[in-house]
Amino acid sequence: MAGSSYGKLFQITTWGESHGKALGVVIDGCPAGLPLCEADIQVFLDRRKPGKTKISTPRKEADEVEILSGVFEGKTTGTPISLIVHNTSQRSADYSEIANYYRPGHADYTFDAKYGFRDYRGGGRSSARETIGRVAAGAIASKILETLGIKLTAYTRSIGPIAIDDTKFDFQALAETPTCMPDYEASKKAEAYLEDCMKNYDSAGGVIECKIEGCPAGIGEPVFDKLDANLSKAIMSIGAVKAVEIGDGTQVASRRGSENNDAFTIKDGNVTKVTNHAGGILGGISDGSTILLRAHVKPTPSIFSPQQTVNKQGENIEVSIKGRHDPVVVPRAVVVVEAMTAITILDSLLVNMSSRMENLSKVYKNK
Amino acid sequence: MAGSSYGKLFQITTWGESHGKALGVVIDGCPAGLPLCEADIQVFLDRRKPGKTKISTPRKEADEVEILSGVFEGKTTGTPISLIVHNTSQRSADYSEIANYYRPGHADYTFDAKYGFRDYRGGGRSSARETIGRVAAGAIASKILETLGIKLTAYTRSIGPIAIDDTKFDFQALAETPTCMPDYEASKKAEAYLEDCMKNYDSAGGVIECKIEGCPAGIGEPVFDKLDANLSKAIMSIGAVKAVEIGDGTQVASRRGSENNDAFTIKDGNVTKVTNHAGGILGGISDGSTILLRAHVKPTPSIFSPQQTVNKQGENIEVSIKGRHDPVVVPRAVVVVEAMTAITILDSLLVNMSSRMENLSKVYKNK
Amino acid sequence: MAGSSYGKLFQITTWGESHGKALGVVIDGCPAGLPLCEADIQVFLDRRKPGKTKISTPRKEADEVEILSGVFEGKTTGTPISLIVHNTSQRSADYSEIANYYRPGHADYTFDAKYGFRDYRGGGRSSARETIGRVAAGAIASKILETLGIKLTAYTRSIGPIAIDDTKFDFQALAETPTCMPDYEASKKAEAYLEDCMKNYDSAGGVIECKIEGCPAGIGEPVFDKLDANLSKAIMSIGAVKAVEIGDGTQVASRRGSENNDAFTIKDGNVTKVTNHAGGILGGISDGSTILLRAHVKPTPSIFSPQQTVNKQGENIEVSIKGRHDPVVVPRAVVVVEAMTAITILDSLLVNMSSRMENLSKVYKNK
Amino acid sequence: MAGSSYGKLFQITTWGESHGKALGVVIDGCPAGLPLCEADIQVFLDRRKPGKTKISTPRKEADEVEILSGVFEGKTTGTPISLIVHNTSQRSADYSEIANYYRPGHADYTFDAKYGFRDYRGGGRSSARETIGRVAAGAIASKILETLGIKLTAYTRSIGPIAIDDTKFDFQALAETPTCMPDYEASKKAEAYLEDCMKNYDSAGGVIECKIEGCPAGIGEPVFDKLDANLSKAIMSIGAVKAVEIGDGTQVASRRGSENNDAFTIKDGNVTKVTNHAGGILGGISDGSTILLRAHVKPTPSIFSPQQTVNKQGENIEVSIKGRHDPVVVPRAVVVVEAMTAITILDSLLVNMSSRMENLSKVYKNK
Repeated sequence: MAGSSYGKLFQITTWGESHGKALGVVIDGCPAGLPLCEADIQVFLDRRKPGKTKISTPRKEADEVEILSGVFEGKTTGTPISLIVHNTSQRSADYSEIANYYRPGHADYTFDAKYGFRDYRGGGRSSARETIGRVAAGAIASKILETLGIKLTAYTRSIGPIAIDDTKFDFQALAETPTCMPDYEASKKAEAYLEDCMKNYDSAGGVIECKIEGCPAGIGEPVFDKLDANLSKAIMSIGAVKAVEIGDGTQVASRRGSENNDAFTIKDGNVTKVTNHAGGILGGISDGSTILLRAHVKPTPSIFSPQQTVNKQGENIEVSIKGRHDPVVVPRAVVVVEAMTAITILDSLLVNMSSRMENLSKVYKNK
Repeated sequence: MAGSSYGKLFQITTWGESHGKALGVVIDGCPAGLPLCEADIQVFLDRRKPGKTKISTPRKEADEVEILSGVFEGKTTGTPISLIVHNTSQRSADYSEIANYYRPGHADYTFDAKYGFRDYRGGGRSSARETIGRVAAGAIASKILETLGIKLTAYTRSIGPIAIDDTKFDFQALAETPTCMPDYEASKKAEAYLEDCMKNYDSAGGVIECKIEGCPAGIGEPVFDKLDANLSKAIMSIGAVKAVEIGDGTQVASRRGSENNDAFTIKDGNVTKVTNHAGGILGGISDGSTILLRAHVKPTPSIFSPQQTVNKQGENIEVSIKGRHDPVVVPRAVVVVEAMTAITILDSLLVNMSSRMENLSKVYKNK
Repeated sequence: MAGSSYGKLFQITTWGESHGKALGVVIDGCPAGLPLCEADIQVFLDRRKPGKTKISTPRKEADEVEILSGVFEGKTTGTPISLIVHNTSQRSADYSEIANYYRPGHADYTFDAKYGFRDYRGGGRSSARETIGRVAAGAIASKILETLGIKLTAYTRSIGPIAIDDTKFDFQALAETPTCMPDYEASKKAEAYLEDCMKNYDSAGGVIECKIEGCPAGIGEPVFDKLDANLSKAIMSIGAVKAVEIGDGTQVASRRGSENNDAFTIKDGNVTKVTNHAGGILGGISDGSTILLRAHVKPTPSIFSPQQTVNKQGENIEVSIKGRHDPVVVPRAVVVVEAMTAITILDSLLVNMSSRMENLSKVYKNK
Repeated sequence: MAGSSYGKLFQITTWGESHGKALGVVIDGCPAGLPLCEADIQVFLDRRKPGKTKISTPRKEADEVEILSGVFEGKTTGTPISLIVHNTSQRSADYSEIANYYRPGHADYTFDAKYGFRDYRGGGRSSARETIGRVAAGAIASKILETLGIKLTAYTRSIGPIAIDDTKFDFQALAETPTCMPDYEASKKAEAYLEDCMKNYDSAGGVIECKIEGCPAGIGEPVFDKLDANLSKAIMSIGAVKAVEIGDGTQVASRRGSENNDAFTIKDGNVTKVTNHAGGILGGISDGSTILLRAHVKPTPSIFSPQQTVNKQGENIEVSIKGRHDPVVVPRAVVVVEAMTAITILDSLLVNMSSRMENLSKVYKNK
């Protein structure tokens, strides 16, 4: 397996290149009986679409999803759901030049090193368009999680040096700002920062955060398939991510135990925690409090200022990337982080169903 | 599968509880023909042993490994290698008290939430003793990597607020300091810091770094099984880790593209990079330069100062943890990080063998 | 995972229903650098097409394959190959009646029992049209095997009571007869038998055989993933198959050891066997001689004579199946058996690449 | 993965060689809360022990199982169960001679072809002693199935030409006869036949049958992981098995559809079948009636009469196998077939838990 599948029971397999005929995903293991239509998925895909504002690429990508299988009379059948998005706006001419050299910060060189050659059009398989399949599958996972009372919220924490103010967290801002920041003021500043980047033919990075509320305690496997381990893989598998944090993340390393431990307490008859430095996961298993993760995203490698690199003939050359590129990928990657998180949480919930003898009785004796 | 297995072709399965009869690992998929004896493995296990210095638990753990299968006449046979370490020094009495309450920062509560009950002796399966199997398997993976010219070095970057000075990196210090810091001066300061923690019935966290040198370009799969995604899972699956970084990690988020891109250049006829912000991985695939990762480790949750928590009867109580605990797990976790990294790199190398038609010819036509 | 994926390194995932928009397959793990075009695949799909002769359903199925990804400039790129076949000739009206009852010998009842409801149009996911994806993937696997000198031949051994005469094995007959029998005379008799079945509103079963020549010795894993175990799963996963034999199969049970053992001998300097009762596999690993397997296929369950069954209201009823059905599925299933065998052999070859230290050197030191 | 693991959620990994220090199995994914002790497992292992009668090898194998992990206070904890059986009676001297040649019908040659060398003592990893781990794991699976009202019965259907009479099926005979035949008369004849084989320095094969009663309808996945496909792999992965049948198996190929279809009927308000040619599985999914499978076992390849073979120097030689060997493996393999069946059925039940939205609610809303 060349690693285009993810998930143990809710398994997704993505396929497609940036400038091929289409991109898509096959979801195997979606429980039967979920009401599902294309609009449920399209709303997620629209969140990753470019071309909405001046801070994203002017490329128009229709990215309309079509359900090819696995849904009958408006409900999932339990068999594979095949989703397809046709490529429509790709201009291959933009990319023909890069066939012969290796763009810094891109996977051109490593694909050649691995496979001997590559589909160079728009990055081919290494293009961020691959995430279309992830987002489409994530829409379905999210819909199932909702039925169990589990709610995900992903948003931009920072772009370049501009971060949100947690005390001003505003869901409407999250829905409306082009940055996906839940803070109008920070978003304005970030937009100004991005305009400055663009003016300088440069690009920016940032931080995405995702909260999972309502996840029951007891989800995740205690050793290699820890919930945080699986989340880390899911998030780090997104193109430009270079670091993943759970809960207080990097901050824990310089703390003392007395500062970092979360005291347990009884609240309304339930076990709960006074603080949540752990980010909702203890020993790889959810503890019932809010799960929190953060992804650190590098600046878009495609910049218009001249760069040193090499060509396939082994010569040092200087290049200036052309084409239509986002000055920052963070806002469009927010829904990708949310999707990968949803898929991971759902898969863990499904795997966990068989963890206790009493769950077997619930399913097989009630039938 | 309850997630006690890791790896696709070099697959390890660990088992055992802190206070059970023994712990171990089964390694399936180790190539045949590798010279292997118990000493090769013991040297790795000795690096994670406690009781060597005053900054680690006074528990004596013999942790002598025995090869039960998979090796014949001094060489691996290609069949499963079963390794066992008998538990000898466990004093269950130390732990009987914790059966009834949930230690803050530990997995006691989440195990109960998942399984309905737990082996409470010394943390049972959630104990750091589980990593014995990982380290033993990592010793074998490292030995194979060595034959391919791939060398791993893991070390302590920081403990609490005390970090090493990169310009003073010293392999002898790494081998000799009780902190596993490759810097004598920093180590001395860290020891003093830890003594202060202990004096205050408290504990410390830290950062572990791992470098992989000599990994060929082209290793790792481009989508979900990205080399950095798999490494993140591997490292985050280690007990106390709360954040993982690749290359410059969290720093990339506030940089501009022009600062973060690594220019390619030709050196001695080979494609190489002028800088290595990416940490040796582009698009999930190794680029031939040094791979670098960092794990952020939380302070030991077992502290002797009194803490608030709840018991199984649903009452708020105050507890003081007893027993023999490390004031910091970082120095002992260094070899665990190295082991999980070695296993991941080797597994990626094995999976990558079938990535090109020409590799098939090399193996099957030369036979 | 709901089991729509097969293979460890050469992994195929099929999707699609009989009367949905399309059917397809995603192949992940195909080595890069294989010349591939749609015609390579279409020739296999044409072998499973119905409507060619009077002994198959008069349904016309165009079944034209389209490559959506994974091929660039005429060669596989190493990334997922997505193949699609649009459904064009489906007449759902034919099937609306069966929505309410359970056809004997079909999966209508078991799908309802598993999922709570089903896509009843033409059997939905349980339709033999699902095998389109398998055959398309098998075409690619076969092309790779050819480059390694491995050749597969599948054919009809018997239909109803009519069997081929091995001494008259004729490749031209195999290519030309509507029964896929490599024996013109037997085929004529089988055709007459099938006409008799049709006249009586009845159907027939039969036996398919597959030979693999040129497979090197040493392929297959010794315990659960024995080559014959994996082949058995692959073949038994084809709809109507009820028994699988390797080599002399069921005959071995009544033999004595002295009759069944294959003596080894040296021929042209190589280890070879005097006989091949074992069918080319010893201890789950190929021995270098011809691998032979047999699939026993049940008669088509869709027959026009009246049958007893029950409806969803829990009433006993009598039904007469309508529609366009093959009187025997064997000739069309021959290429499905060949495809599943090719996929299994190729996957075993890829997994086996990492079985020896010396293979690692071949791939990584020659780079 | 070198294929020593089996199962998706109830995953077993076996290890150990015939003449190594020990053999064992790690079971990952056993639901928590099952009462379990060594006696539960030992009773299964005792059924595969040799040395009980004159028709089995005079080797004494104590084969006492020890639970090393995963059980606490008499119940499974949900974490890996590690089981070990120490090798005690192995006489390596018996086997030293075979180091240099390839025994006909054994895996000596294929192991060398695959790995370059082999542990030749008693067949090493290819020894039937590998099944100890399977049987131990099967005992646990069977215990879980029992709690769900699912009962397995495996027995010898025939040895050489001697078959049982179904009308005389007798559970007491099954428990008492050395042949594991549920028919005293047939067993007597089979014993006489075996004595004749032994007198002629020869061996016999036979057929094992397994019935699964009480399995709910709806278990198994519809495409590659069909219940019968997984059972076929499980059974064919047992050393000497050369054919697997489901239900009427090979007989279906020569039948007409009207003879082979099982009519549905309502009985006591439930959907049931008038006949069971299908062996309880339709479209890869259980239909609620008795599941029936048959394994065809080859005669023991180790026979004392002289045989032609080759040595590692490439010379044709004549050999006479020495040592202590069963004249037939069928009676001892009965419990292995039962164990592999139990593991497969249980794993399918666990995977099936997530097949419907309503099952998710049962597990997560009732919590």
